[in-house]
Amino acid sequence: MTPTRTRRELAEYLGGKVIGDETVAVNGLAPLENAGPDKITFLANPKYAAKVATTGAGGVLMAPGGERYGRSVIELANPYLGFAKLLTLFYTAPHPDLGVSPQACVAADARLGEGVSVYPGASIGSGVVIGSRCVVHPGAVIYAGVTIGNDTVIHANAVIRERCRIGSRCIIQPGAVIGSDGFGYAPDGTGYYRIPQIGIVVLEDDVEIGANTTIDRAALETTLVRRGTKLDNLVQVAHNCQIGEDCMIVSQVGISGSAKIGNHVTLGGQVGVAGHLSIADDTMIGAQSGVPGTIPASGIFSGSPVMPHKEWLRAMAVVPKLPELKKRITELEKKIAGRETITEKE
Amino acid sequence: MTPTRTRRELAEYLGGKVIGDETVAVNGLAPLENAGPDKITFLANPKYAAKVATTGAGGVLMAPGGERYGRSVIELANPYLGFAKLLTLFYTAPHPDLGVSPQACVAADARLGEGVSVYPGASIGSGVVIGSRCVVHPGAVIYAGVTIGNDTVIHANAVIRERCRIGSRCIIQPGAVIGSDGFGYAPDGTGYYRIPQIGIVVLEDDVEIGANTTIDRAALETTLVRRGTKLDNLVQVAHNCQIGEDCMIVSQVGISGSAKIGNHVTLGGQVGVAGHLSIADDTMIGAQSGVPGTIPASGIFSGSPVMPHKEWLRAMAVVPKLPELKKRITELEKKIAGRETITEKE
Amino acid sequence: MTPTRTRRELAEYLGGKVIGDETVAVNGLAPLENAGPDKITFLANPKYAAKVATTGAGGVLMAPGGERYGRSVIELANPYLGFAKLLTLFYTAPHPDLGVSPQACVAADARLGEGVSVYPGASIGSGVVIGSRCVVHPGAVIYAGVTIGNDTVIHANAVIRERCRIGSRCIIQPGAVIGSDGFGYAPDGTGYYRIPQIGIVVLEDDVEIGANTTIDRAALETTLVRRGTKLDNLVQVAHNCQIGEDCMIVSQVGISGSAKIGNHVTLGGQVGVAGHLSIADDTMIGAQSGVPGTIPASGIFSGSPVMPHKEWLRAMAVVPKLPELKKRITELEKKIAGRETITEKE
Repeated sequence: MTPTRTRRELAEYLGGKVIGDETVAVNGLAPLENAGPDKITFLANPKYAAKVATTGAGGVLMAPGGERYGRSVIELANPYLGFAKLLTLFYTAPHPDLGVSPQACVAADARLGEGVSVYPGASIGSGVVIGSRCVVHPGAVIYAGVTIGNDTVIHANAVIRERCRIGSRCIIQPGAVIGSDGFGYAPDGTGYYRIPQIGIVVLEDDVEIGANTTIDRAALETTLVRRGTKLDNLVQVAHNCQIGEDCMIVSQVGISGSAKIGNHVTLGGQVGVAGHLSIADDTMIGAQSGVPGTIPASGIFSGSPVMPHKEWLRAMAVVPKLPELKKRITELEKKIAGRETITEKE
Repeated sequence: MTPTRTRRELAEYLGGKVIGDETVAVNGLAPLENAGPDKITFLANPKYAAKVATTGAGGVLMAPGGERYGRSVIELANPYLGFAKLLTLFYTAPHPDLGVSPQACVAADARLGEGVSVYPGASIGSGVVIGSRCVVHPGAVIYAGVTIGNDTVIHANAVIRERCRIGSRCIIQPGAVIGSDGFGYAPDGTGYYRIPQIGIVVLEDDVEIGANTTIDRAALETTLVRRGTKLDNLVQVAHNCQIGEDCMIVSQVGISGSAKIGNHVTLGGQVGVAGHLSIADDTMIGAQSGVPGTIPASGIFSGSPVMPHKEWLRAMAVVPKLPELKKRITELEKKIAGRETITEKE
Repeated sequence: MTPTRTRRELAEYLGGKVIGDETVAVNGLAPLENAGPDKITFLANPKYAAKVATTGAGGVLMAPGGERYGRSVIELANPYLGFAKLLTLFYTAPHPDLGVSPQACVAADARLGEGVSVYPGASIGSGVVIGSRCVVHPGAVIYAGVTIGNDTVIHANAVIRERCRIGSRCIIQPGAVIGSDGFGYAPDGTGYYRIPQIGIVVLEDDVEIGANTTIDRAALETTLVRRGTKLDNLVQVAHNCQIGEDCMIVSQVGISGSAKIGNHVTLGGQVGVAGHLSIADDTMIGAQSGVPGTIPASGIFSGSPVMPHKEWLRAMAVVPKLPELKKRITELEKKIAGRETITEKE
């Protein structure tokens, strides 16, 4: 059932070059160690280069100039990217056009583009505008006034609150919440007075949001996630944040209100970012770190509070030795005191 | 469409005092830097005081005695609170009474007060009692036997499990789970035997719960969140916890079982609190801290494990220097050893 | 209404031994301090042994040989386990067979076993197979091709994505997401190319998943949680992870991709585990710790990065004293320098 493709077809698809018989066909992908002759495999990590010699695969994606061990290969600059593209080619298909289920709840004035699928139990509010070929899975709830671009997928039980704007080719994993109220209260002397959160969330094109991740709407204006940025599961983005293009925000990161994250920034798992700061383009923050203030120039940082990553590695190596260092200081003090006593006696 | 209000009306509403023409009207709020004459603005942070001179706003909320730069102002003790109240006045409206959607699933014996709105796809179980003017959004699930006060809003896909009790004027953001089973197991020698969690969760009045936050039901009795306390997104509250009044629990905090948090406590983002301890009223815990034991008296604490915040700041300043300190100790030891050798030679 | 049981019946049920009148009956459980004569209580923690003297309970579960203070007791090796089992006996009942609600959305080709209850608003996709006596609560969404064993409970608004496999006697708390796409992207020079996640999640028998926890499907094969393991709320398990049998994964833990966790492992709250590593059987990791690499042999570890727990305790005791230690080093250096100066003068 899976379609078959010749090496030549695959090389053309990927912009690579076949070395070996171009007419041999494969029907899928498999890892180096267990691929058979009907599968193509790939070598991305040089550590595994020797496995090319013994693989049974019907072809290997590899970087130009690598040792081929007599195998047929497709040379291309980025074999890992090639692998990802072939996964797409062999194993994915556009979602079929299911139309709008009669068991979905779609407001009479919502406007849906061509080929939109709305599953049973999904709910689409008044004035919602959804582009072509979007898929809204069961239990997803789209509040009034939301707009969504083309080819976006909203998975089951995700929630998009009122007036938020989602771009094209976005993927919202199950249970994600876009546009919940920002956490803003004014102390009134005894308790807290709720500050209405009247802004929205904007996700630009190609943004992906992980399962059960939450993005709060702005107090007044916009919480913004720019084009191409990916958020993993259980991430928290507070109100008024701006996250740049092509960032990777790993699971369980928390970003406080009004933080401004640059482009191509990577935040490792469980990182915490304080509010009202900015992080420079191309910055990487190690897992579990805490960013208390602005990072004005790119770099790799770790620790809570953060410091340059290498500095952090060296400092952490000393931590287990702290009790011993303390003892050595005390020891030195005794010796010095002893010498001084001797000196005084003298 | 937005209603217009004169400065006098606003001053009366806020309990403030107009300095300038009381009859001038505005129709909304805007920040100091981009407010036009039809908008009112506010000065809460003294840092921005000079912007009053150049704002184009039709009035400024400010504390009594501030420099007015010749502007018309409304003086009041807490301009930030005033700003919040005017946001409410200008930009929010009570939810319209939509009644119960025929596409909602409401048990025959559920009792709903006046003006309750239940959206399509919401589910309300047997014996549920809901007060007046509550709103239950699409996909929200209220298990059997739950009681809810008046004017409470349950957002989309939130879940309230069986028999839990929610107060009046509460707001439950999308995806929050109230009353999931506590994490309790008895080791049986090889694996774990599930301890039935037969208690409930009680949220008192004016409690707000963030998106995808989870609050576990008690093993036997009650997990309690007292009046006025606000929980941000993705917070975890384990079984049997008690959280006092007017607390602020920031995103991704985790509170272990049977912890007892006082009144007016603030827990910063990603804080972890161990079980079976108590935290004194008015305590503040810095972001990412870990609280391993009871905090008997109020204060500001940080670190994991926590220490007084100022102490933590000083200690953290030393951490990056640990490798250098280690070297200096070794250096000292060499010198001392050298001296001793000399002494011995002497 | 609650059934009454004699001490003899309870002792037989638990495999224990009555000391006292075997025919006296009770109707439930209560804590030592407020149990009346119609309730049974238990002593698990020796700290509370003296309370046995004053309890009003109609019987005490306790370990053999404990001081009875003249009370009637049921002796058994594990009184805490006995307590848990009696909670089950007195306070829980099998879910009634409600059948499939006409307001649920069940695909025509889904196959449901005997006594399955499907609540209104639940959604069950094409080709799903569900064993006997399972319960699917409102708003739960089961995508196409999922299989579920017997006696499993899927709570409200939980989501099981396509083709995942759930064992028997599993409990999925509300809002949990099983089978969301793994966070895998190939950098393409400017941004990120999505790697299709074509694998699945397998939960073996007796696995329990907390509220709003997320478990990502594997890129190619299987993300696996083995028999008896319990995950608390808001836990993240990334793609391709394998978690062993009878583990306890406490709230807000994050486990990165392809990590392999052994059997009987306990991960404390908010622990972070890096990817592509393994953790030995029977390991315990303290709350908020970070595991950066493989733990080859069991033990108790804490800190970020982790070290042996006792070492960590000693190191953390020194942290608040770092500024003082720094000062003492400087002081020593001055003294040494002074001596050297003197020496030179000499």
